[in-house]
Amino acid sequence: WRQNCVPSILSEVYSKHDMIILINLMDLLDDTVPGIGTYEDFNTIDWVREKSKDRDRHREITNKSKQSTVALLFSISDAFSGWLLMLLIGLMSGALAGGIDIAAHWMTDLKEGVCLNGLWFNHEHCCWASNETTFQERDKCPQWKSWAELMVGVSEGPGLYVVNYFMYMCWALLFAFLAVILVRAFAPYACGSGIPEIKTVLSGFIIRGYLGKWTLIIKTITLVLAVSSGLSLGKEGPLVHVACCCANILCHFFTKYRRNEAKRREVLSAASAVGVSVAFGAPIGGVLFSLEEVSYYFPLKTLWRSFFAALVAAFTLRSINPFGNSRLVLFYVEFHTPWHLLELIPFVLLGIFGGLWGAFFIRANIAWCRLRKNTCLGHYPVLEVVVVTLLTAFLAFPIEYTRMSSSELISELFNDCGLLDSSKLCGYTSNSGSASGSVNATAANGLGARLAGPDLYTAMWQLALALLFIPSMAVGAIAGRLLGVCMEQLAIRHHERDIFRGWCSPGADCITPGLYAMVGAAACLGGVTRMTVSLVVIMFELTGGLEYIVPLMAAAMTSKWVADALGRESIYEAHIRLNGYPFLEAKEEFRHKTLATDVMRPRRGDPLLSVLTESGMTVEEVERLIADTTYSGFPVVISQQSPRLVGFVLRRDLVISLENARRNQEGVVSMSPILFTECDPPMSPSAPPAVKLRSILDLSPFTVTVHTPMEIVVDIFRKLGLRQCLVIQNGRLLGIITKKDILKHMAQMANRDPDSILFN
Amino acid sequence: WRQNCVPSILSEVYSKHDMIILINLMDLLDDTVPGIGTYEDFNTIDWVREKSKDRDRHREITNKSKQSTVALLFSISDAFSGWLLMLLIGLMSGALAGGIDIAAHWMTDLKEGVCLNGLWFNHEHCCWASNETTFQERDKCPQWKSWAELMVGVSEGPGLYVVNYFMYMCWALLFAFLAVILVRAFAPYACGSGIPEIKTVLSGFIIRGYLGKWTLIIKTITLVLAVSSGLSLGKEGPLVHVACCCANILCHFFTKYRRNEAKRREVLSAASAVGVSVAFGAPIGGVLFSLEEVSYYFPLKTLWRSFFAALVAAFTLRSINPFGNSRLVLFYVEFHTPWHLLELIPFVLLGIFGGLWGAFFIRANIAWCRLRKNTCLGHYPVLEVVVVTLLTAFLAFPIEYTRMSSSELISELFNDCGLLDSSKLCGYTSNSGSASGSVNATAANGLGARLAGPDLYTAMWQLALALLFIPSMAVGAIAGRLLGVCMEQLAIRHHERDIFRGWCSPGADCITPGLYAMVGAAACLGGVTRMTVSLVVIMFELTGGLEYIVPLMAAAMTSKWVADALGRESIYEAHIRLNGYPFLEAKEEFRHKTLATDVMRPRRGDPLLSVLTESGMTVEEVERLIADTTYSGFPVVISQQSPRLVGFVLRRDLVISLENARRNQEGVVSMSPILFTECDPPMSPSAPPAVKLRSILDLSPFTVTVHTPMEIVVDIFRKLGLRQCLVIQNGRLLGIITKKDILKHMAQMANRDPDSILFN
Repeated sequence: WRQNCVPSILSEVYSKHDMIILINLMDLLDDTVPGIGTYEDFNTIDWVREKSKDRDRHREITNKSKQSTVALLFSISDAFSGWLLMLLIGLMSGALAGGIDIAAHWMTDLKEGVCLNGLWFNHEHCCWASNETTFQERDKCPQWKSWAELMVGVSEGPGLYVVNYFMYMCWALLFAFLAVILVRAFAPYACGSGIPEIKTVLSGFIIRGYLGKWTLIIKTITLVLAVSSGLSLGKEGPLVHVACCCANILCHFFTKYRRNEAKRREVLSAASAVGVSVAFGAPIGGVLFSLEEVSYYFPLKTLWRSFFAALVAAFTLRSINPFGNSRLVLFYVEFHTPWHLLELIPFVLLGIFGGLWGAFFIRANIAWCRLRKNTCLGHYPVLEVVVVTLLTAFLAFPIEYTRMSSSELISELFNDCGLLDSSKLCGYTSNSGSASGSVNATAANGLGARLAGPDLYTAMWQLALALLFIPSMAVGAIAGRLLGVCMEQLAIRHHERDIFRGWCSPGADCITPGLYAMVGAAACLGGVTRMTVSLVVIMFELTGGLEYIVPLMAAAMTSKWVADALGRESIYEAHIRLNGYPFLEAKEEFRHKTLATDVMRPRRGDPLLSVLTESGMTVEEVERLIADTTYSGFPVVISQQSPRLVGFVLRRDLVISLENARRNQEGVVSMSPILFTECDPPMSPSAPPAVKLRSILDLSPFTVTVHTPMEIVVDIFRKLGLRQCLVIQNGRLLGIITKKDILKHMAQMANRDPDSILFN
Repeated sequence: WRQNCVPSILSEVYSKHDMIILINLMDLLDDTVPGIGTYEDFNTIDWVREKSKDRDRHREITNKSKQSTVALLFSISDAFSGWLLMLLIGLMSGALAGGIDIAAHWMTDLKEGVCLNGLWFNHEHCCWASNETTFQERDKCPQWKSWAELMVGVSEGPGLYVVNYFMYMCWALLFAFLAVILVRAFAPYACGSGIPEIKTVLSGFIIRGYLGKWTLIIKTITLVLAVSSGLSLGKEGPLVHVACCCANILCHFFTKYRRNEAKRREVLSAASAVGVSVAFGAPIGGVLFSLEEVSYYFPLKTLWRSFFAALVAAFTLRSINPFGNSRLVLFYVEFHTPWHLLELIPFVLLGIFGGLWGAFFIRANIAWCRLRKNTCLGHYPVLEVVVVTLLTAFLAFPIEYTRMSSSELISELFNDCGLLDSSKLCGYTSNSGSASGSVNATAANGLGARLAGPDLYTAMWQLALALLFIPSMAVGAIAGRLLGVCMEQLAIRHHERDIFRGWCSPGADCITPGLYAMVGAAACLGGVTRMTVSLVVIMFELTGGLEYIVPLMAAAMTSKWVADALGRESIYEAHIRLNGYPFLEAKEEFRHKTLATDVMRPRRGDPLLSVLTESGMTVEEVERLIADTTYSGFPVVISQQSPRLVGFVLRRDLVISLENARRNQEGVVSMSPILFTECDPPMSPSAPPAVKLRSILDLSPFTVTVHTPMEIVVDIFRKLGLRQCLVIQNGRLLGIITKKDILKHMAQMANRDPDSILFN
């Protein structure tokens, strides 16, 4: 394609000489032997090598760019391709997120009824379009029919509730069944939150297909189905996964990113910022989330680009306007009442609650996953999902707050009660009368504007029930709102007491129960994910007011401390460990006083380290060594007697080169010598030709000494992204430490099973 | 003190045994030989060693904490001391920033006149206190007397202007003279912006006294004096310096931070976030500034703590309320009109202007500094400041916009004209009449609410003049406002044209000139400092609206690209290079294809590398080697014949240990052997006793091979914070690469003078 197509387009404009340069540029990284420098599935990349490759490529382009105009243009387009890619990721992810929101909204409402004006309207849009709606009862209109009304034909009666209940469960079941079947049939990687896997991928692990187009399609559809079926899940994880899939697919159109695993991971880091940006409508929070939680290698250039992509996505989502209020998310809020210093006590209490809940949730979740893994429960995933969905739907329908989708619930809980609010949560005595009720009521005692009425009490009971089986952010929001209303009533009823003096002033609210809901949500999310800065910034972006940062921060800090005291791992790390992924956590410092010699292979008593010598080995000997061992690379030394290090060669490169030599190089037989040396040793003319492999030899492998403390070794591995490191004593090669060895050692030091680390 | 005081306080509560543990804990890091492990002035620290020291300390405390309650309490207080320190830094910096704002405001007004009600009132407060002020003319009141009124005694007349002019210049001169004298006499480090030095310090350099108490006191006073004298300078640099001084002083009260250079630098990173937080009232922006611009080693723990400190400082500043509007900064704004897509063109133009201006400013500034350094101009700093001040004051007084302080100017430029605004910049025809003018005017053509009036034209001319000699953010703000007003008038006068259709709707503004001012300010600041994310986030925090991020981002991006095309360095980096500080830039990748062998010392032809052998050298030989060379460390090898690496020893540690041995160890003479070995070699009983120095030997020095590409070496130095690295070939020690060698090499590759790197 390349040789044929490009000249025909450009030949009229540019000279032949330019053309050749252009083609050379495009072929820049075509390897001499195909396959060298690539990785196998479920292996870790070598960051140093990938970054070197990219620098070589950049150097080449820069040098060429001085030679001709075409090459200069190519170099400029290459420099801007990163920005273009970010733009595309932002647009695509924003559009997908908007589509998911609209579809999920519509399908959630479909469980309850249908719009006669058009099947494609959800409840809210259906009644907007209707003229017969009053502002007070804007969710009731004749065009919207519940399933019972449609099927039985009357609009009142005792059987209606049962029919609606049944239809609700049927739809939920259908959605959940479809979702689980789709995942199992087409894209097994689409299951789960995705963040643990993405963290591992970003740290350098390769899982082919995890971010492919099938995963994207199925994940998008199943996310809609799962949300609509009422299964409780956070949207941020799946949206991060969706954004990363978009990024990975779009990377294929840019050579720079397609060919380089390290560069691709920079893009994926930005994509995870995009995912959070559209999930919460918080671009800055998204970037900080990516920086704090997900990313492994996050250079400043990526920071700036992530920010750009996150903004593009947020604005794309806004122009799609899925919630009809030109806000990015359903639960955007504006508070007006300031908070009082004493309120920090309930906020800290919410933090403690969030921490406890987070620690409990992580343990329960991991225990369930372990149960599924180790017992026969794991063989019937469809059945499991169906049962869980039926149970959820059965319990959810009777209570108003569990029947709605969790975004709607959170939105209602965060809401600050206005004068015109019809929600039961705003069922204060004075609000039930007229719109100006609060002004009238102040005449009585100057304050009583916010005494709880019967509606509010009902709502509180229902919320308390909902608390029992709704997970994630919503739990925190419910707990917060309950505490908030209690505090409010306390302050109103005892407003003459010293401690509450000054809280309630005529005409204004005493405290904001919605703020408590938000603080509670932040505390629970913090307890589960152990986010800190990004969590506070996300919540700040939701409220837009700097003054509410202090309560959020107090709760997030308490929650993290409490949760950390009960278990150091976040839900993501716990899942990474459960799955045995090779992930070297950057947050936790390695605190043990072991040395490199304690970790390196071979151990004392083991057979000697398998090494190659720089000369003197034959093709057959090397092939036997490869067949006999499973190591992913071999050190090359001067000779077995003088094990002084020359370099390191990767197994995959060696295998490919030997196959290539056997196939393409004339006269290569099993007895051909293999040479890693710079200049050929003298050989008899009758000897078979040598296979020269210095080109695949890494001449600058990383080394440490046997006395190097493991804390420093771990630091080097983390910061430089190594796969392996050789251990030297006084110039002699003694052993090797791989990432897997380090992870096993860390597991051992923490009294866990070192064999739980599965991959390289 | 320790032995005497602590028991007397606590002896009644805790047993003797606990006491001993507590004292042991406090003495934890008292070195056996004092001085070992410390650094000399103008040297670079070894990050790896410092972090190891801290981990050792932490391990010790954790182990002890299992033994007794006191030790457990100590370990908990140790864990929380970081948070306490952050709280104190936030409080102290916030209070200082508030004080500086208030004092500068008062002294700026003092140049024009004095308040009769009380000398300590500034102009605004003076007239607030007065009852005779109307809302329209709130800055005119009889209590506030200009100097001419006070001295001549009449309130009208031709001579008044001249007297006021003279007094203005006198005061400016006095302030500037005081400032420069104070700096010269007491704290020479207090001069300059401070950010280049702080960047260098954070990267591991030691400048004793740069963050000391004298610097803090003098910097605070001179900042007030300089701002009041009208010398144009940005406040963010000095405030970052002030916050870092606070942090450094407060570190002295916490052993953990006092004794460890790496830990102290974590705190300083947080302090620089605090500085920006109080300068712009933007805590999140401050943290990102520290992350993006200033910090070298910024672990996630520091991110979270910086955020906490920045928030505390912002709230402290707010409770001091220096501007009387419960805002953090003078130029907080709220815009209401949305922007149009087409407006991106002027925004990008502002970005180009900002980039050009930034590049020009950096060159001019560096050229001036170089001139001052290389000619006799540098010998008369007082004269220089006096002349500049006189010139500034002379030119500034006649124009209203240059007479006010630059914060006030920026505040006025950012301002969105309300109905009641009395500023000349809001001198639109319809505003000059009544408060409801805009409503009346709309009756005429439905739009004309914002046609420029004569006042606005005057303001525009004055601004255009001011543009000529005001530096920093204000230039951008002026240019932006000018462009904004032009665009506004264009849109109003041609509102029937196709491209402006829909911009102006009745009763609302067409566009927001204040937004243009903000975009322009961001562009210029971006051009000078090359900030990106942090700049946009700071401006976002000033406006509070997510929708204005896109214009800011467009301008910041353009500005950075344009400025980078004209010169890669920001003002900070240019000053670092000018001063020859050893700073390894983390943003710029090393792009050249050189190898470690090209950089290492000794070069080909040079004398051999100075090494020590692990045995066989005498005290005298080592002392002679130390006297003959200036290297800051020596590799230790097995023998001269077999140069296989054993370890590395620092010059300072060696000198101190030898002196200590000569003084305290019995029988040490010049012929005593020096041993770095683990076990003693056999010696004759009559030989002098050996000096055993294995304890000061670093057994795990970092090594690279001669074939290692320099790009990887640079990466290792940056990421691990090394001072030096040894170069090995096939197990033989060949040379050494220090940070200074790398910097010299980088200077050489960029065609600069390698001898401009002055320090180690």
